[in-house]
Amino acid sequence: MASAADRRFMRLAIALGRRGLGQVWPNPAVGCVIVRDGRILSRGWTGPGGRPHAEAAALARNPDVRGATAYVSLEPCAHHGRTPPCCDALVRAGVARVVTALTDPDPRVSGRGHARLRAAGIEVEEGVEADAAHAANAGFLLRLTQERPFVTLKLALSLDGRIATAGGESRWITGPEARRAVHALRACHDAVLVGGGTARIDDPDLTVRDLGVSHQPVRVVASHSLNLNPDSRLGRSARDLPVWLLHAAGLTPPAQWTATGARLIGCATRGDSLDPAAMMSALAQNGLTRVLCEGGGALAAGLIGAGLVDELVIFAAGKMIGADGRAGLGPLGMARLAEAPQFELMQVQRLGADLCQTWRRR
Amino acid sequence: MASAADRRFMRLAIALGRRGLGQVWPNPAVGCVIVRDGRILSRGWTGPGGRPHAEAAALARNPDVRGATAYVSLEPCAHHGRTPPCCDALVRAGVARVVTALTDPDPRVSGRGHARLRAAGIEVEEGVEADAAHAANAGFLLRLTQERPFVTLKLALSLDGRIATAGGESRWITGPEARRAVHALRACHDAVLVGGGTARIDDPDLTVRDLGVSHQPVRVVASHSLNLNPDSRLGRSARDLPVWLLHAAGLTPPAQWTATGARLIGCATRGDSLDPAAMMSALAQNGLTRVLCEGGGALAAGLIGAGLVDELVIFAAGKMIGADGRAGLGPLGMARLAEAPQFELMQVQRLGADLCQTWRRR
Repeated sequence: MASAADRRFMRLAIALGRRGLGQVWPNPAVGCVIVRDGRILSRGWTGPGGRPHAEAAALARNPDVRGATAYVSLEPCAHHGRTPPCCDALVRAGVARVVTALTDPDPRVSGRGHARLRAAGIEVEEGVEADAAHAANAGFLLRLTQERPFVTLKLALSLDGRIATAGGESRWITGPEARRAVHALRACHDAVLVGGGTARIDDPDLTVRDLGVSHQPVRVVASHSLNLNPDSRLGRSARDLPVWLLHAAGLTPPAQWTATGARLIGCATRGDSLDPAAMMSALAQNGLTRVLCEGGGALAAGLIGAGLVDELVIFAAGKMIGADGRAGLGPLGMARLAEAPQFELMQVQRLGADLCQTWRRR
Repeated sequence: MASAADRRFMRLAIALGRRGLGQVWPNPAVGCVIVRDGRILSRGWTGPGGRPHAEAAALARNPDVRGATAYVSLEPCAHHGRTPPCCDALVRAGVARVVTALTDPDPRVSGRGHARLRAAGIEVEEGVEADAAHAANAGFLLRLTQERPFVTLKLALSLDGRIATAGGESRWITGPEARRAVHALRACHDAVLVGGGTARIDDPDLTVRDLGVSHQPVRVVASHSLNLNPDSRLGRSARDLPVWLLHAAGLTPPAQWTATGARLIGCATRGDSLDPAAMMSALAQNGLTRVLCEGGGALAAGLIGAGLVDELVIFAAGKMIGADGRAGLGPLGMARLAEAPQFELMQVQRLGADLCQTWRRR
């Protein structure tokens, strides 16, 4: 039976694991805490790019953990990948007990880690704080089980749901605190995704700025016919920081774009648009576990309508723009109110003059 | 100098006064607390319909207040109206000190109350918690100084700012807790105002239900050409509870409507619509100090665009409807983002599954 202390140390391990979100894909963001007699001996979390694993990082920091309990937010790996199996390292280090939150659904692990620890005489306790660990690694788990990433949709809206005036003026609806929070959101996602219209109109960088991060998210643009300017900020910087372009599967990408260094990914279409499920599947096949969509309205509506938005982050500014302004969400073609996609409020926070709301798909 | 205790008792007086909001128009909603040696001897507030005044109510409850301090959230009246002047009643009761928050801008009072108390040898302290008292009686003050009521705009919106589906389905976007809060909002306003489109489509009652209130707000419909059905809920109930119809000044109201018992009020027009400022002026002339506008989008946009919305109450439901749904706010015809009407966040509150936000005009 897990004690209150077990749950507390596991929550710490999960929180440490979260530090890796956006930097470890396609790997999970795992945290590890090693404890003896109620004292924390070491801590570790998955490193950038997915290495070292959390257990290896914790053992490297302090190898003297004989008889201790290791709290790991995901089942330790049992296979030789680019690193030796973590369960062997825990056995060698002489820990007496291992507490985990989740079984790793990766077919190469999938219970083998737990079994190997038990075979070595280690006491194993599974499923401690499983819900919290599941939430933290939802992207990793969705990719393995549903071949799609966790999708966060960010909308910076006026109080009447607009993202720009009739004339297209959108800078800035929200204040500097909210814009800074958007950069923090980008930093904990593997990729930032925008539609072709937004890329054409805003000519965005889509980088994380002013937060001192070493790792930038992949910049993804969804553009059915690749009607995008290679001499844009994204095109010019594609050699330095990854740019991926999702386009209609049948299309031969223009040579100008192939020359930029961008990765070109064909996707199935639905009518005149890229199919949202096909786009997400393609991103998962390319390793992404967490994608932040920043609009525009048509792409957002495609994802919302397909039930692919897991989390909504709305930055609401205390402004009114009016129905002649540009809508933050395109048409959904819904016949009945009962069909409206529903979200549950997770968190509300004042950010300067704006109100940041986090809603999770019901 | 006002002490901390003075400020505390004044805040109590203001809170008591708020109980009258929506029931005392065209009078102010005043509260009175009478204190001796730190003990509250009596409390009172303006009664329904504006009588008795707060001071009279408090003195009636306990006439033995010799040597006490009376805290009154507005300058006591100095004129004979339907009741004798409150400052005379305070003098007769033998209070030693009167603390007030505001000078009454009513030309019949306007400092005369304070002067009369001082002339009788009573110590008078003015301006204690003036901001809070001003906020509580903003409607009364706006009516006297700007000939318009305080306007609250209520919007029950999906997360993308919609009030109905493309097919017009709007019941219910928000949950029962939010709908109950709307009834509480109605109860503290003198009148509920909707546009003609909303009246035609929803056939609303616009009454306060299930809150045990004895006093119903005036139901007001703004309809340029009075294209409204007299055999509607509003038309059929106009003899029992007041219904006022704002219409274009030149129009001769149809006999069917005059027969319902509704009050017909002509207003200046602007293009094909009633002029928002003229409507508010007409409502103030008819005595209203606090008006709750419940849409639709065109009326809301008219009021917002004219800078006449003082407070916005948004009930946001965790649903997405899409750009083909009906917008909560009509077009504002704004050229630049810098012209967008701005609001400051006052309060945020979870109501069941919905998020209630109160924003105040900057």
